[in-house]
Amino acid sequence: MLTTSTYDQLCTAAREVSLLHGASAVLGWDQETYMPPKGVEHRSRILAQLSGQAHEQFTSRRFRNLLEKAEDEVDDQAAARTSIVKANIEQLRRELDRALKLPKKLVEQNSQAISLGQAAWAKARAASDFASFAPHLERLVGLAQEMAARWGGKNEPYDALLDQHERDATAQDIDKLFTALRPSVAKIAKDAVARSAAEAPPLKAMLGNCPVEKQQILNREVAEAVGFDFDAGRIDTTSHPFCSGFGPGDVRLTTRYDERDFLSSLFGVLHETGHGLYDQGLPEGEWGLPSGSAVSLGIHESQSRLWENHVGRSRTFWERWFPRAVSLFPHLKKLTLDQFLLGVNRAEYSFIRVESDEATYDLHIMLRFSLERQLFSGKLKVSDIPDAWNAEFESSFGLTPPNDAHGCLQDIHWSMGGFGYFPTYTLGNLNAAQLFAAAMKQRAIKNATTKAEYAPLLKWLRDNVHAAGSCLSPAELMEHATGKTTESGPYLKHLKARFVG
Amino acid sequence: MLTTSTYDQLCTAAREVSLLHGASAVLGWDQETYMPPKGVEHRSRILAQLSGQAHEQFTSRRFRNLLEKAEDEVDDQAAARTSIVKANIEQLRRELDRALKLPKKLVEQNSQAISLGQAAWAKARAASDFASFAPHLERLVGLAQEMAARWGGKNEPYDALLDQHERDATAQDIDKLFTALRPSVAKIAKDAVARSAAEAPPLKAMLGNCPVEKQQILNREVAEAVGFDFDAGRIDTTSHPFCSGFGPGDVRLTTRYDERDFLSSLFGVLHETGHGLYDQGLPEGEWGLPSGSAVSLGIHESQSRLWENHVGRSRTFWERWFPRAVSLFPHLKKLTLDQFLLGVNRAEYSFIRVESDEATYDLHIMLRFSLERQLFSGKLKVSDIPDAWNAEFESSFGLTPPNDAHGCLQDIHWSMGGFGYFPTYTLGNLNAAQLFAAAMKQRAIKNATTKAEYAPLLKWLRDNVHAAGSCLSPAELMEHATGKTTESGPYLKHLKARFVG
Repeated sequence: MLTTSTYDQLCTAAREVSLLHGASAVLGWDQETYMPPKGVEHRSRILAQLSGQAHEQFTSRRFRNLLEKAEDEVDDQAAARTSIVKANIEQLRRELDRALKLPKKLVEQNSQAISLGQAAWAKARAASDFASFAPHLERLVGLAQEMAARWGGKNEPYDALLDQHERDATAQDIDKLFTALRPSVAKIAKDAVARSAAEAPPLKAMLGNCPVEKQQILNREVAEAVGFDFDAGRIDTTSHPFCSGFGPGDVRLTTRYDERDFLSSLFGVLHETGHGLYDQGLPEGEWGLPSGSAVSLGIHESQSRLWENHVGRSRTFWERWFPRAVSLFPHLKKLTLDQFLLGVNRAEYSFIRVESDEATYDLHIMLRFSLERQLFSGKLKVSDIPDAWNAEFESSFGLTPPNDAHGCLQDIHWSMGGFGYFPTYTLGNLNAAQLFAAAMKQRAIKNATTKAEYAPLLKWLRDNVHAAGSCLSPAELMEHATGKTTESGPYLKHLKARFVG
Repeated sequence: MLTTSTYDQLCTAAREVSLLHGASAVLGWDQETYMPPKGVEHRSRILAQLSGQAHEQFTSRRFRNLLEKAEDEVDDQAAARTSIVKANIEQLRRELDRALKLPKKLVEQNSQAISLGQAAWAKARAASDFASFAPHLERLVGLAQEMAARWGGKNEPYDALLDQHERDATAQDIDKLFTALRPSVAKIAKDAVARSAAEAPPLKAMLGNCPVEKQQILNREVAEAVGFDFDAGRIDTTSHPFCSGFGPGDVRLTTRYDERDFLSSLFGVLHETGHGLYDQGLPEGEWGLPSGSAVSLGIHESQSRLWENHVGRSRTFWERWFPRAVSLFPHLKKLTLDQFLLGVNRAEYSFIRVESDEATYDLHIMLRFSLERQLFSGKLKVSDIPDAWNAEFESSFGLTPPNDAHGCLQDIHWSMGGFGYFPTYTLGNLNAAQLFAAAMKQRAIKNATTKAEYAPLLKWLRDNVHAAGSCLSPAELMEHATGKTTESGPYLKHLKARFVG
């Protein structure tokens, strides 16, 4: 019989591990926001210690015994299974089996390499100096290769890395998906770029100078209006925007500012707000357990892209917010809403993924997926990345990056050991379109959204996405919320309507 | 024989514990600076987990065995003792013996009570609502009483709390010191207040409005000029100023701003900078060990008071910095340096300790010492604190606090479980005067200081105070640096020269 006490003890033990991860998250956030430069060496030691400690506790004999006992008890009595109890036991098993394959030393080394790698990347990117980052990347790739070998991928080592971020994903499946998607996306991109070139001036030329302090006011108002709770979160400034949830009541967003382009920061904030709303919407009573944790990056990214693109780049959103922008930046008065919207949704082949428009975004992702897969199959060496990046970029975009800061150094992910992470961005785009379309089938949600009132939409996401934690797999969650697993249709329909409609 | 490996293993184990304390320090700093209000509950859980973890590791069988083995080996071979090795082993023993007397649960409970208590205190102080803080204070006093009982004080339970902050201090000794000091200090205060009332207008009336951003510029320039390394530290804003060293390369100062009194923030920053210089001056190679840690609060406070008062309130300092202040705050032009200095060193009976002048400061400390001692001897109940505070304040200062925010709620310390902490502030005053007088005996240091050049003074402090870590006891350190253990003479001489000279 499943005694309360075994399961309760298991939850307590799992939560103790989560508290250590929560501490690491605070220290990681601080490293990116406020830590003075000379603090990096010691910070990397603290983070290594915390991750080693968490690993040791999670893989301890005591935790393994508790999990085995809970598994036996839940098997013995089917009646005692609630879906949450069952899901937690299953997911803890999945995580534990992965953790048991890694020695503590490797976990500590990886954590330290990430902390040092991130600091080295920030410097290297600022100086566009790949050579200074290369040894860190070698180290991080080497550690990821070792972890992948120990985990064992389904078909290839890279699968084990993908699976970290997106339960059950394989490179083969992603490849199939991307291969099918690519012609349509490339065609939409090409048409959209041509159309924008004819119709809309470059955004920076339109927007003029917008002081950072006023951008911050607008960002905060918008984030608050879509539902972000600032008593349980905040926005800070970093060189690469991110969202980090430390636990109930504390979710941190970051952004960066360009006085010549307030939309870059605003859409960045809407994007991170989408992540933050998911974190703030996780069931608070389930904190520290799979049932209280986000299920995958592909679902997480669906939330950020939904708010950034489906909400934030829509006409109805700007009918509400353009007047407010004009009141803060009076020089925008000279633009009509139509002109402004042409700028907001201008498509252009560009170098930087996070600043790229929806029409060309997935081409950036496909490039990274291709390079990562080659890196982990042994076809590509770290030292060859800049050339390979530039060659592939030229063939996809018809442009050559002027330097590595605009090429292979632009993203923070590899410096964080985040290999197998990028493909989840395109999954997120597909999921976002599919979830948004499903929500819009509810008349009340659609009506409110048309008036730039988003509480009903957020409630639908809370009920259909956030509340589930990791109790459903990404596929189950999509099916539960939309009736189908992830598919391309709604996304392509959305892109066509927006860019070539 | 003392094998390298036993001692090395001991150091590694001690450092692992220190890394967890470092993590707690970052999280504690974040709680005071940037954490959103709803994060407090979860933060208290994380901090409890970290402190419990650190306690468990420190008191583990493995650590105890390592320390015992190192003690045996160092005893076996006197030749192998270096003062550092010996001091580390002795101090780790002292700390371990204290830690072994506390169950892990108590350590966790105390950590959680502190995290919740600090948040409750900040709210209570803002609303001047002692009743809302009282249950937290009951809890914190109760936990401190339990810890004191387990540790066992030399003569009374309060001694065990003092000993946490000031190695070997007893309430009897402090009482003797304060009793001897009090008449002179009270006399100087009285004379100084009378003289200031006749000679100097209240500071706020003199200083006018100074924008926060310009105060920040001045604070930073001053902190940098006295030697604080901003590549290894920073200044943020909190409701109660503090300094927290996370480890090598990362020391955080905080301050608060009053537009009507830029000196409040500036002296606050100089004070915290003094703490920060000590932390930045600890031997980096010894991090995480007693030999790389500050020895006591009475020595720590000597560093802050030296820079705040002996340097920062001197004529020579302002000969250099008054013109800079005028360039930032042009309305100060109407003041002569003499008028300004009268204001800087104005004495007045006032309610808030951290804003009080040197002449009246120790009276604030003596009040707190008296109340704390009564609290832990059972003579005073938590609920009686406001009345007892006000009565004692009236008898010392001839004034009644208008509310608890200006009375017993003003300090953060009790909400941090920092009982037995306040007396170290007066020890710090004595030590500061004694150390400064000793340094000034060196002609080169005196000459440079007269020209507001502080590198030689800082070097002397680095060599004579910071470099020792905890290898010397507070008494040994004072004797090593000045030829005598802590005494009152130099401090009284300083006060007389400054206030009734």
